[in-house]
Amino acid sequence: MSKGMFITVEGPDGAGKTTVTNKVVEELKDRGHDVLLTREPGGIDIAEKIREVILNPTHTTMDSRTEALLYAAARRQHLVEKVFPALEQGKIVLCDRFIDSSLAYQGHARGLGIDEVWGINQFAIGDMMPDCTLYFDIDPVEGMARIAKNDGREVNRLDLESMAFHEKVYEGYQLLLTRFPERMRKIDASRTIEEVSEEALEIITAHF
Amino acid sequence: MSKGMFITVEGPDGAGKTTVTNKVVEELKDRGHDVLLTREPGGIDIAEKIREVILNPTHTTMDSRTEALLYAAARRQHLVEKVFPALEQGKIVLCDRFIDSSLAYQGHARGLGIDEVWGINQFAIGDMMPDCTLYFDIDPVEGMARIAKNDGREVNRLDLESMAFHEKVYEGYQLLLTRFPERMRKIDASRTIEEVSEEALEIITAHF
Repeated sequence: MSKGMFITVEGPDGAGKTTVTNKVVEELKDRGHDVLLTREPGGIDIAEKIREVILNPTHTTMDSRTEALLYAAARRQHLVEKVFPALEQGKIVLCDRFIDSSLAYQGHARGLGIDEVWGINQFAIGDMMPDCTLYFDIDPVEGMARIAKNDGREVNRLDLESMAFHEKVYEGYQLLLTRFPERMRKIDASRTIEEVSEEALEIITAHF
Repeated sequence: MSKGMFITVEGPDGAGKTTVTNKVVEELKDRGHDVLLTREPGGIDIAEKIREVILNPTHTTMDSRTEALLYAAARRQHLVEKVFPALEQGKIVLCDRFIDSSLAYQGHARGLGIDEVWGINQFAIGDMMPDCTLYFDIDPVEGMARIAKNDGREVNRLDLESMAFHEKVYEGYQLLLTRFPERMRKIDASRTIEEVSEEALEIITAHF
């Protein structure tokens, strides 16, 4: 049976993931590959409904474990309804954020524990770990500065207050790189979009 | 700090759980105890919203793992917002169905695996296992016959078709009794409501 390739894209905010991934997908399509670019909840009705529960601003009493379980539930449904069928059709699936985001943001930065969040996500994804994960590495201070620049404003007090959180996310990703040295490929995202895209493309094509 | 008692009530459909539990709660209140009777989602907004996603009849593509994660999420939120505060106030909390229902119905009967469903529920409840679980034991054929009788109709073809599922649920509960012999107290629910209620009450008061 024809089977596609499952690639996830990870990194702290401001690493330029989305810009680079769009460029990489365009290039892959130009070369004649059948590519699906997606991100959770990816237009899947049940996953969208779950996201609505997570993001509803009136849900101020949301417990962080409830939230982690809801993310895992949305992940499962997106996988079953969108990613699995595409892989069965032999497509290259690029998914913007996946299990490692939960591990870095909720497991490490929010303090739920990487192993604990890993457990519920294992239940959600089964043996569907990505074939390869592109990790865009950017210093959290530089990442935040980029985001501020895109917003056309200076880094403000609030950004700085949340720097501790972004530092923890970064730290979480470094732990994951140690844990999954084969699967996770670290890409220096401080360079130009062209340089970063080229390296990402090289890593992907090396997996063909 | 004053701490209450957390009791869960379990059993296959038709075991008479609800009737007996209501009777037991009345009796405990008559004796001057501060009792909270609840069941998930228990009027907790976030948990109700999660239940809506689970039960929405248009969600025909709902994967059983997604469902199990959503139940665990609703469980967590109900626990945090309703059960924990009541226990901190020193109340006796009786919860109609809890983790064992997920283990018996989804873990065993639906075939997701008791250990796997246990894992995500452990994440949801932490160390908040019930002090005591009243398990109302009823032969699944008798349980279904009782439900049919309450509906004022004979057991029909559909009921019989689903008997295999109810047999699996029953089998799941038997496995749980073996796994949690200290916590789970088996009560023969084939007897009269009075007899069953009396035994349930004895077990609870023995825990005081």
